[in-house]
Amino acid sequence: MNTLMGIAASDGIAISKAFLLAEPNLSFELGKNDDPEAEVTRLEDAVEVSRQEIEKIKAKAAESLSEEEAAVFDAHLSILLDPEMKNAFVEKIKEQSYDAQSAVRETADMFITLFQNMEDNPYMQERAADIKDVTDRIIAHLLGVQMPDLSMLDDEVVVLAYDLTPSDTAQLDKRYVKGFATDIGGRTSHSAIMSRSLEIPAVVGTGSISKEVSNGDLVIVDGLDGNVLVNPDQDTVEEYKAKQKAFLDQKAEWAKLVDAKSLTADGTEFEIAANIGTPKDLEGVNQNGAEGIGLYRTEFLYMDSDEMPTEDEQFEAYKAVLENMGDRPVVVRTMDIGGDKHLPYLQLPEEMNPFLGYRAIRIGLDQDHLLRTQVRALLRSSVYGKLRIMFPMISNLQEFRDAKAIVDEEREKLQADGIEIANDIQLGIMIEIPAAAVLADQFAKEVDFFSIGTNDLIQYTMAADRMNEHVSYLYQPYNPSVLRLIKYVIDAAHKEGKWTGMCGEVAGDQTAVPLLVGMGLDEFSMSASSVLKTRSLMSKLDKSEMEKLVEKALYECTTSDQVAELVKANVSGIE
Amino acid sequence: MNTLMGIAASDGIAISKAFLLAEPNLSFELGKNDDPEAEVTRLEDAVEVSRQEIEKIKAKAAESLSEEEAAVFDAHLSILLDPEMKNAFVEKIKEQSYDAQSAVRETADMFITLFQNMEDNPYMQERAADIKDVTDRIIAHLLGVQMPDLSMLDDEVVVLAYDLTPSDTAQLDKRYVKGFATDIGGRTSHSAIMSRSLEIPAVVGTGSISKEVSNGDLVIVDGLDGNVLVNPDQDTVEEYKAKQKAFLDQKAEWAKLVDAKSLTADGTEFEIAANIGTPKDLEGVNQNGAEGIGLYRTEFLYMDSDEMPTEDEQFEAYKAVLENMGDRPVVVRTMDIGGDKHLPYLQLPEEMNPFLGYRAIRIGLDQDHLLRTQVRALLRSSVYGKLRIMFPMISNLQEFRDAKAIVDEEREKLQADGIEIANDIQLGIMIEIPAAAVLADQFAKEVDFFSIGTNDLIQYTMAADRMNEHVSYLYQPYNPSVLRLIKYVIDAAHKEGKWTGMCGEVAGDQTAVPLLVGMGLDEFSMSASSVLKTRSLMSKLDKSEMEKLVEKALYECTTSDQVAELVKANVSGIE
Repeated sequence: MNTLMGIAASDGIAISKAFLLAEPNLSFELGKNDDPEAEVTRLEDAVEVSRQEIEKIKAKAAESLSEEEAAVFDAHLSILLDPEMKNAFVEKIKEQSYDAQSAVRETADMFITLFQNMEDNPYMQERAADIKDVTDRIIAHLLGVQMPDLSMLDDEVVVLAYDLTPSDTAQLDKRYVKGFATDIGGRTSHSAIMSRSLEIPAVVGTGSISKEVSNGDLVIVDGLDGNVLVNPDQDTVEEYKAKQKAFLDQKAEWAKLVDAKSLTADGTEFEIAANIGTPKDLEGVNQNGAEGIGLYRTEFLYMDSDEMPTEDEQFEAYKAVLENMGDRPVVVRTMDIGGDKHLPYLQLPEEMNPFLGYRAIRIGLDQDHLLRTQVRALLRSSVYGKLRIMFPMISNLQEFRDAKAIVDEEREKLQADGIEIANDIQLGIMIEIPAAAVLADQFAKEVDFFSIGTNDLIQYTMAADRMNEHVSYLYQPYNPSVLRLIKYVIDAAHKEGKWTGMCGEVAGDQTAVPLLVGMGLDEFSMSASSVLKTRSLMSKLDKSEMEKLVEKALYECTTSDQVAELVKANVSGIE
Repeated sequence: MNTLMGIAASDGIAISKAFLLAEPNLSFELGKNDDPEAEVTRLEDAVEVSRQEIEKIKAKAAESLSEEEAAVFDAHLSILLDPEMKNAFVEKIKEQSYDAQSAVRETADMFITLFQNMEDNPYMQERAADIKDVTDRIIAHLLGVQMPDLSMLDDEVVVLAYDLTPSDTAQLDKRYVKGFATDIGGRTSHSAIMSRSLEIPAVVGTGSISKEVSNGDLVIVDGLDGNVLVNPDQDTVEEYKAKQKAFLDQKAEWAKLVDAKSLTADGTEFEIAANIGTPKDLEGVNQNGAEGIGLYRTEFLYMDSDEMPTEDEQFEAYKAVLENMGDRPVVVRTMDIGGDKHLPYLQLPEEMNPFLGYRAIRIGLDQDHLLRTQVRALLRSSVYGKLRIMFPMISNLQEFRDAKAIVDEEREKLQADGIEIANDIQLGIMIEIPAAAVLADQFAKEVDFFSIGTNDLIQYTMAADRMNEHVSYLYQPYNPSVLRLIKYVIDAAHKEGKWTGMCGEVAGDQTAVPLLVGMGLDEFSMSASSVLKTRSLMSKLDKSEMEKLVEKALYECTTSDQVAELVKANVSGIE
């Protein structure tokens, strides 16, 4: 038996035989052609077959993954069909007499080297990976080499790979793929996010699993503790079967809470809501018994489109969500573009520090026609449900006042046109910038609600980009400084009779939930798959006990680790 | 008379005749050669003359400018002498039969286009500007065209230009250049920083001054209000002469305070210290009567070198500063590398958001041999003056504890070797990350002092990169959120009997000083040229009045603008 430790990427235990996803062998010697026209035709055929395949993968991805996740294939298609890239291939065939595969390889290597050398520039480095993915596919067709195809699986397996490309994950079929493990990656890597999205047990970053396993080996993927066991003995298999059963039993137990209220042991009621990206996500929301939508990320509407979505297109999307949710509240966040989210049709400046740059409400107020269109669509949709509008990246009072003025103006215009608008729409802000947290008392006098965006709030408070592996250890959700800011915001809202939600990852973090209950956070919004687990945890907590815990965490603990230990020592079942 | 409005870049009024710094005409038609060896020789001669010129400019820059500012010429020399660049020139001469100037132009254009197109990448774009600066010089020599040479001036002038390159500013001679104005640039552009460093009145960003002036025109550069007047009438000249006199009188008045204490009108004493980058800056410190060094930025020691400075080299630098300052305190900040400050000999990761990345103490604790070397040099120097060691970018208690442990360990080792070390060295931290400000009460129990770094603190608190023109309006020093954090830090320090300084630009900001006096900031550290002005302002303030102003600013004002207006309305002489 061989045990590898990795990073637990997606809950659950898989026990099945290994399917090794090997990299295809695309090596060949550079060759020349004596019939350039024929080579160009070969090339064009290979590009066309590749196009069809990517289209197919994209369609499949759009079914099984979110639209954001599927969008990578649009990038692949645009590389494949880029006329400059095509010209470069043809030039190498015609002017340097290369055969088609050599022309593709030489051109690709040039671009890949060029982009990879832009070490200052992660965007371009990512583009290098995309070019490799696409040109490898063309070359595979030219060489007659079979690309790995997970969609061909017809038996239950655990997939092992160096890494899974977006093309690979798009083809994962839950009926056959019971789990997977990779050599590289972290909790926020593409493959890890995919595994949670698909609810497939997964371990990433094992270092070498793809080299230590042969096809058909028995493999256990323990996505709870981050271990992968190769050819375990019978006792171990039994042990993990028991662990698997316990996990599934717990999930079944949680499932009973789908229609329950979110109550603490001593009877305080909270609201547990879900975050969504598109109307398609509503299925998960309803299956998991979320009491509302705490965050509807509307930027996917913008990112999935080739041009700015019209007012009517937006109206239809918002209406669909509001109608589906009925009298459960829906918090819609206005466009949160910029930072690491770009639109092909909206020219944004290139920035040295995009996370500290021109993004979200800063764009919305600067190019206010964009925000006005969205606000009009929202106002029109308001009669179909319980709408709350939330502005992201607010750093100072003036920004909220300007945004509110836009809502008031568009409301008047619409009403002048005889359009009916709900009169109970709440207007709130994300608290994700330290300045807004520090002035929460002043904001609370003017807004209807807060929703704390912990991902950004922690990044800015600690001055650490959590996507940057060199400083990700400073992304400390339990740092007393972060917790103090959160408590200050909640208290400031309550003092003015307003409510505070949280829509960052921390809201569903089982170590943080006891503290947030103690602070009296009103609404917890998280990925739908965490709702029941959190409701179950909440039912075991005593609010008054948690209040005491909060005092200790904020004023007796000095580090994030101390807070985590404090919670573990005082709340049973937290690991 | 023609008046142009621009951005006031450097205080003072200049009235003199215009010297138009025109761009040299370097246009020519691409040509071929029939003697490649002769062309290569021509090229080599031009490169050699260019090298001598750049060396001369660099030497001159090292005299008149800080070492940091002079460092750009090292970059120019390394481009000029880069073997790959040279090979590319020679290849074009030998293989494509270009003449030397065409070979340089073609090669340069290729690199410049390539780098400029990396729009994601400001570093590379800057490199494009450097390549243009260097290759233009080579081409000028090949064409026999005179490059503009400000060092030739022998009469008093005001210099007008589209922009001033680093090469231009390095040649500015204060005896003849009485002021300058440019078409482009902002307050933090290279030429603006230079103008303040040289104390030459300057206006930048006028849009078109270089097109609206002829050589010999009479020009007034009003660096106080940001105006440039071309061919003013006699009344206007008299008016500006009076304004100039008033300004010079005020400077003379300030100069009398050089040996004075820093006292408010009601007799509270503060400390006004200066920020320095190198021992050379001590001259300004002493001339302006600074009471200490509030920030010695040691990174220039690292940036000016081709390899890591040794313990002995560092020791000599620290000793020089400590000896010079005598019993006045010197706060030395440990290496603040990373972010936008890179070292040629220290490989740092490329990052998406360098301001939120691997920098300063994060590097020092991760690669602790670097920090240990610096700490040893500091400890050894401590017997020569009044040393205070300060750690930058501290975000959590653990970091300070780890840094302090390094100091304690190195102290023990040195003492075991019989080396004498002062026993009154204070250890403090920069407060520039919101998390540290929020936990100031906990830090105050463990550190000896705080120094608030407002530049970063404001950036992180407002989540806005102040170097990014699209969001620089969010760099709001007077935002109540920023002011509340500052006050919280000062109060927390005082509660534990510790002191708080400030070494960011805000410490010398005349609108902020009254508020900082009201908050009881203990030490104000600023550029030496602001010390006397600030001491003068302080002498007119009543601390108890300022305390009341602080209450209003923090709790009644809701925006940065309101705070600025509040101060103006209550303190005379603030504009």
